[in-house]
Amino acid sequence: MSKQSATLLIQCDDQVGLVAAVTEFIQRHMGNVLHLEQHVDTDAFFMRVEWDLENFNLENNAVADAFEKQIAHRFSMSFQLFFSGEKQRMALFVSKLPHCFYDILSRYQSGEWDIEIPLIVSNHEDMRPVAEQFGIDFYHLPITADNKAEQEKRQVELLKQHKIDFIVLARYMQILTADIIDQYPNRIINIHHSFLPAFPGAKPYHSAHARGVKIIGATSHYVTADLDAGPIISQDVSRVSHSEEVDEFIRKGRDLEKTVLANALWKHMQRKTLVYKNRTIIFN
Amino acid sequence: MSKQSATLLIQCDDQVGLVAAVTEFIQRHMGNVLHLEQHVDTDAFFMRVEWDLENFNLENNAVADAFEKQIAHRFSMSFQLFFSGEKQRMALFVSKLPHCFYDILSRYQSGEWDIEIPLIVSNHEDMRPVAEQFGIDFYHLPITADNKAEQEKRQVELLKQHKIDFIVLARYMQILTADIIDQYPNRIINIHHSFLPAFPGAKPYHSAHARGVKIIGATSHYVTADLDAGPIISQDVSRVSHSEEVDEFIRKGRDLEKTVLANALWKHMQRKTLVYKNRTIIFN
Amino acid sequence: MSKQSATLLIQCDDQVGLVAAVTEFIQRHMGNVLHLEQHVDTDAFFMRVEWDLENFNLENNAVADAFEKQIAHRFSMSFQLFFSGEKQRMALFVSKLPHCFYDILSRYQSGEWDIEIPLIVSNHEDMRPVAEQFGIDFYHLPITADNKAEQEKRQVELLKQHKIDFIVLARYMQILTADIIDQYPNRIINIHHSFLPAFPGAKPYHSAHARGVKIIGATSHYVTADLDAGPIISQDVSRVSHSEEVDEFIRKGRDLEKTVLANALWKHMQRKTLVYKNRTIIFN
Amino acid sequence: MSKQSATLLIQCDDQVGLVAAVTEFIQRHMGNVLHLEQHVDTDAFFMRVEWDLENFNLENNAVADAFEKQIAHRFSMSFQLFFSGEKQRMALFVSKLPHCFYDILSRYQSGEWDIEIPLIVSNHEDMRPVAEQFGIDFYHLPITADNKAEQEKRQVELLKQHKIDFIVLARYMQILTADIIDQYPNRIINIHHSFLPAFPGAKPYHSAHARGVKIIGATSHYVTADLDAGPIISQDVSRVSHSEEVDEFIRKGRDLEKTVLANALWKHMQRKTLVYKNRTIIFN
Repeated sequence: MSKQSATLLIQCDDQVGLVAAVTEFIQRHMGNVLHLEQHVDTDAFFMRVEWDLENFNLENNAVADAFEKQIAHRFSMSFQLFFSGEKQRMALFVSKLPHCFYDILSRYQSGEWDIEIPLIVSNHEDMRPVAEQFGIDFYHLPITADNKAEQEKRQVELLKQHKIDFIVLARYMQILTADIIDQYPNRIINIHHSFLPAFPGAKPYHSAHARGVKIIGATSHYVTADLDAGPIISQDVSRVSHSEEVDEFIRKGRDLEKTVLANALWKHMQRKTLVYKNRTIIFN
Repeated sequence: MSKQSATLLIQCDDQVGLVAAVTEFIQRHMGNVLHLEQHVDTDAFFMRVEWDLENFNLENNAVADAFEKQIAHRFSMSFQLFFSGEKQRMALFVSKLPHCFYDILSRYQSGEWDIEIPLIVSNHEDMRPVAEQFGIDFYHLPITADNKAEQEKRQVELLKQHKIDFIVLARYMQILTADIIDQYPNRIINIHHSFLPAFPGAKPYHSAHARGVKIIGATSHYVTADLDAGPIISQDVSRVSHSEEVDEFIRKGRDLEKTVLANALWKHMQRKTLVYKNRTIIFN
Repeated sequence: MSKQSATLLIQCDDQVGLVAAVTEFIQRHMGNVLHLEQHVDTDAFFMRVEWDLENFNLENNAVADAFEKQIAHRFSMSFQLFFSGEKQRMALFVSKLPHCFYDILSRYQSGEWDIEIPLIVSNHEDMRPVAEQFGIDFYHLPITADNKAEQEKRQVELLKQHKIDFIVLARYMQILTADIIDQYPNRIINIHHSFLPAFPGAKPYHSAHARGVKIIGATSHYVTADLDAGPIISQDVSRVSHSEEVDEFIRKGRDLEKTVLANALWKHMQRKTLVYKNRTIIFN
Repeated sequence: MSKQSATLLIQCDDQVGLVAAVTEFIQRHMGNVLHLEQHVDTDAFFMRVEWDLENFNLENNAVADAFEKQIAHRFSMSFQLFFSGEKQRMALFVSKLPHCFYDILSRYQSGEWDIEIPLIVSNHEDMRPVAEQFGIDFYHLPITADNKAEQEKRQVELLKQHKIDFIVLARYMQILTADIIDQYPNRIINIHHSFLPAFPGAKPYHSAHARGVKIIGATSHYVTADLDAGPIISQDVSRVSHSEEVDEFIRKGRDLEKTVLANALWKHMQRKTLVYKNRTIIFN
């Protein structure tokens, strides 16, 4: 897909003529729609449209302004505009567990994901050698009850300095405070090792084993101030049986966590997510 | 969803301005889009759009003509138009296996599916008591090598006489000839008891067991002249292990067949299927 | 499988030599082991063994006594003994929702399940015609806050009178009291329309939709005094998306409920379930 | 699980008293059974039993001999004996595709798998930097029609020299000849990027897309002389839709391939696989 394209993510109150207005705008400027999806949730309207820029007669830097004036203003739309080829910048927060960390770095290094990872932040030194092996800057910012506010301030500085677009908590075992969360709304992605809302909090595999469930899961979600209660982006499950100890739940869970987090990141990177009323709209 | 709505299924060559033209038509006549999905396959364009008829200013019987003249003609579109509340008429072909048969009749009788089933056709008498229990006419048309052409002629007569819209082969063990298939293109739905294209033909569970697969499946597809090779509508799978005999594959398979066929029928009934190049487009 | 066989379900403290002792007992009396599974949970031992009775040199009615004296007593085992061909007797409790009800009756009538269903109990009249269509006695026992104790007494009388082995709550919307539950420990099977422990209680599909989950589930479990918290027998899940309303969750959920409940019943009928510490051991 | 344990994998004709004899042997020598599974396939008997060595009164190097004389000989059993803590040695064959390669190396380096990987073999130079990054010897053995026999001879030398126990083809795009396969029966594990037996051979994702399947899969199997037809160890699937191009099938398939191959390797490493009549018995 080397075609140059533009993508609009649109949100507004539902009204007659929305799709017609947006598609007419694209057509009038000689664009050809490649993908279009819309969704109506009661009285709210959501749309993602991607079009070919080949014959499009507006310069990239003039599109947002034209769309605002010609369309968005009229319908009180909020919108995001992206162009293909823009690389997003991701920060990776880890602790001691390596599986999601290796998986993300492998996808990055092998070129599966067309992004930048300028920095890794951890409260432990354990993953430093892996970060170095993959050639990415590693910042060790140990967290204690006493220094949390200060270290988060340092984290925000690093994020700003590296122009980070979104943050991934790849089994980062610390709870972020509103000081960070509020600055990156719907841009911090966590992986929780249970099928939320079942088993929030710590040790979900132990709880799942104790409850005797026959299926375990993993959930990736945007981080909000409410622990493990943010908008869900992706979930998946795996069958377990009475013959499996907690160790085996954890082993199976690792593979779930890797793929569920990777799926959520892929959707986010492709600008296919919107958040509304603590739920996500995930475009195809 | 008691709202009165209309649905268009559209197919044509891909061109600039298609979505804009269709949505503008709906808007101009005061309709509000409820659902819209489009798909582009190389140079072919597909679209399903459903809109609220509440303020729509065309009579139902005038819509097709207006759409043809104002839009379809210009883009060389082929289209189908449906209105909510139109009940489709389904014919059920069975043989001796009861599981899909019971499942379909139960959904029908309990009101889960808003359709009509005016007739059941079978090459055996076995299911007659079940048909009678559910109060539906049962026609016993035994098939032999000698009488096949003649019996198919009788089947077509029954189908025409009962104004049948689509036919379901609910584990009907006979192969239909082109004499029937050609009259109901993309309107005969079969359930095959394997994960096609693996194990076409007879005894797929035995073949799957002999091959030692770890997952079995079922496939529902539109019937074409090419056996078990028609456009796939729905598939699902179930895990099996070395400890399961063929009997157990068959037992698990029955449940797969029921749900896969029911899913395919549901999509067809909702007018959410299109066929192109022996593949289906299945709208959400 | 027309072979005559016997099955032992065994439970005791883990000790050296348990499998050897049980299998030596079978061998000494000329039985051939068909299936054997054992499970150790910390210090508890569980086993299911099925053997061919063809050359077995004990009469059926002498096996329990011999096993008790020769083996069980020595290891302080508790055990259950079953013979192939014994038909279990199931009572069906329903309310107004038909999908699980039809599914169970269809499996029963078509001979998929080799059991007896002598009676159906309901707090509403709605399902009476379906019960009659399938030729099974239907008892209408409406429940109010005032008459609950009295009606449960009547239910227990009916259960005793019909020599019921186990009870199925096929979307029966009433909470049973300990008066019934205590008389049928691990013999009352419920289907809950969520992926427990997520969304216990009423309206789980609405809660799941509000939470924005990407996967819904159903759970079949033995009923205990603790609502929706009994030992889980079977679970399954289905994917959902933002584009699906609660109605669609309910529609998909119906199919999940049918298959999950049927799977749990199948395992129970085959004597493949044991309960320990509020969890199930489900043999293959 | 730091307990020292021994594991027997047993295969023979089905006979009365097999389980009793094996478990009695373990008990007589003061071992305690930790896990036991048996399987009967028509007239063939298979068993895996693991026992605690804590009080076992035979030295490790005396067990095989004692078991042969006391038990195996009598029943004409073939058996394999393993002790916990023995590290298996794996050779990794790769070509240009990195996803399975990274995944295996990450599991290895992070300690998830307790094995040795002494060498990597490739027909291309592409993965050398990754091998070096993970600190493992990399042998570049390019294959042409002319040098294939010679290069396979070199491969076998390397495998012998490094005392390799089993070989993993992690998307190694060459077909091995009988010269290698015959020396490592049921010890070469391949990952095929389709749901076998559907779509054997090259470009399965393209074939799956052309056929319009709604589910894609991956299959890991032991390599035999028959291409893509060896005994299946593990399979998994993922849903696809009409809206996904071949590129998206390939992207989803990569994640399937990683987890399916890893599952197969895990089962093999744990000595939980047996092969019989081109099918696998996979113990829990």
